[in-house]
Amino acid sequence: MKKAIISLSGGLDSATSLAWAMNKGYKCYALTFDYGQRHIREIQSARKIASYYKVPLYQIKLKFPWLKVSSLVSKKKKLPDLKYSEIASGKIPSTYVPARNLVFTSICASYADAIGARYIILGPNIIDYSGYPDCRPKFYKELEKAINYGSMSGSTGICLKILTPIIKMSKAEIVKLAIKLKVPLEFTWSCYYGGKKPCGKCDSCKLRAKGFEEAGIKDPVYE
Amino acid sequence: MKKAIISLSGGLDSATSLAWAMNKGYKCYALTFDYGQRHIREIQSARKIASYYKVPLYQIKLKFPWLKVSSLVSKKKKLPDLKYSEIASGKIPSTYVPARNLVFTSICASYADAIGARYIILGPNIIDYSGYPDCRPKFYKELEKAINYGSMSGSTGICLKILTPIIKMSKAEIVKLAIKLKVPLEFTWSCYYGGKKPCGKCDSCKLRAKGFEEAGIKDPVYE
Repeated sequence: MKKAIISLSGGLDSATSLAWAMNKGYKCYALTFDYGQRHIREIQSARKIASYYKVPLYQIKLKFPWLKVSSLVSKKKKLPDLKYSEIASGKIPSTYVPARNLVFTSICASYADAIGARYIILGPNIIDYSGYPDCRPKFYKELEKAINYGSMSGSTGICLKILTPIIKMSKAEIVKLAIKLKVPLEFTWSCYYGGKKPCGKCDSCKLRAKGFEEAGIKDPVYE
Repeated sequence: MKKAIISLSGGLDSATSLAWAMNKGYKCYALTFDYGQRHIREIQSARKIASYYKVPLYQIKLKFPWLKVSSLVSKKKKLPDLKYSEIASGKIPSTYVPARNLVFTSICASYADAIGARYIILGPNIIDYSGYPDCRPKFYKELEKAINYGSMSGSTGICLKILTPIIKMSKAEIVKLAIKLKVPLEFTWSCYYGGKKPCGKCDSCKLRAKGFEEAGIKDPVYE
């Protein structure tokens, strides 16, 4: 049984990564993180998705006061409202949460090390939104090495692997894969504002909309 | 001003690392972690030490259910009571907390990335107690690389450095350095049991006692 820890935000990307993993026969254990994000309601989505796939889920609370530097955490900061060309410019946006994916992946590694899982499955994606340094393939490659040096698994000959199945896909490709794998897209949440309905205007909504548009599919969250 | 994040457990090693950093002119910001350890009272020690050095301290709570696999977290498991030769054998002891130092260092990196600190100062030590994989120099070397790929600092040309000043010192050398730097040793806590007084029998007490004995110094925690 290929045990895997998956970080599940409740968004399109991590839901599709989970579907990919289930399809490949991994036995998944999910973690979802409450780090004070504006769109804390994405955790409800993570719960629904985990429940849909019958995957155990732990909700991990991280209370780090310094994360208020991010507009994704502090409501006093304005969320960006960029054009797609600006989103894809490669600049680090104000929604960057300091070393978030490093922390999440490390916690996944701790869980993996404890239960003897050999895989960590994550849904970062670099193509459309290239501004986040902690979404780059070389970051995960180096982190995988570090994890193997610093864990019981790695130092006793069990190689831990970080899998990032959608890292080089465009949003349109992710949407198509999600459809193919029958991901319950109506459960997923992407909007940074976290209101009752997606705002349709934030970077995350724009990127998602572009993906659905290019894939020629109607987004069920607007229905 | 050389800003540094330091992980402060309240034990001898991290207190000495902080003293080393203060002596070298770093402006330190401390984190101490509550991960459900038996010896949660070490956090009081961390508070006293941070206060002594007038260093700001955040206490970070990490509630990870899987850490119960460690005898340092689960009170249902027996703490080891090894001879020194067994402690130094290189085997991973039951007190190993899965990927603990990976998680702590990642959180330090998040803090550093948020406030623009270039240094992370840690007190791991490999010489006397070689069983923990997450105390090895090569682990920190790889993790430093990963942090630089996955953080804003690293990807904008500010190189984050992990400093482990005592990693290759024996416990006796650490005790001597602590004395030289006037570390308030009476505030430090090492015993895994976390009772009112150190037990003198657990691995951590034994190792500390050996260090003081070899350094020819009386340990003030027994006074």
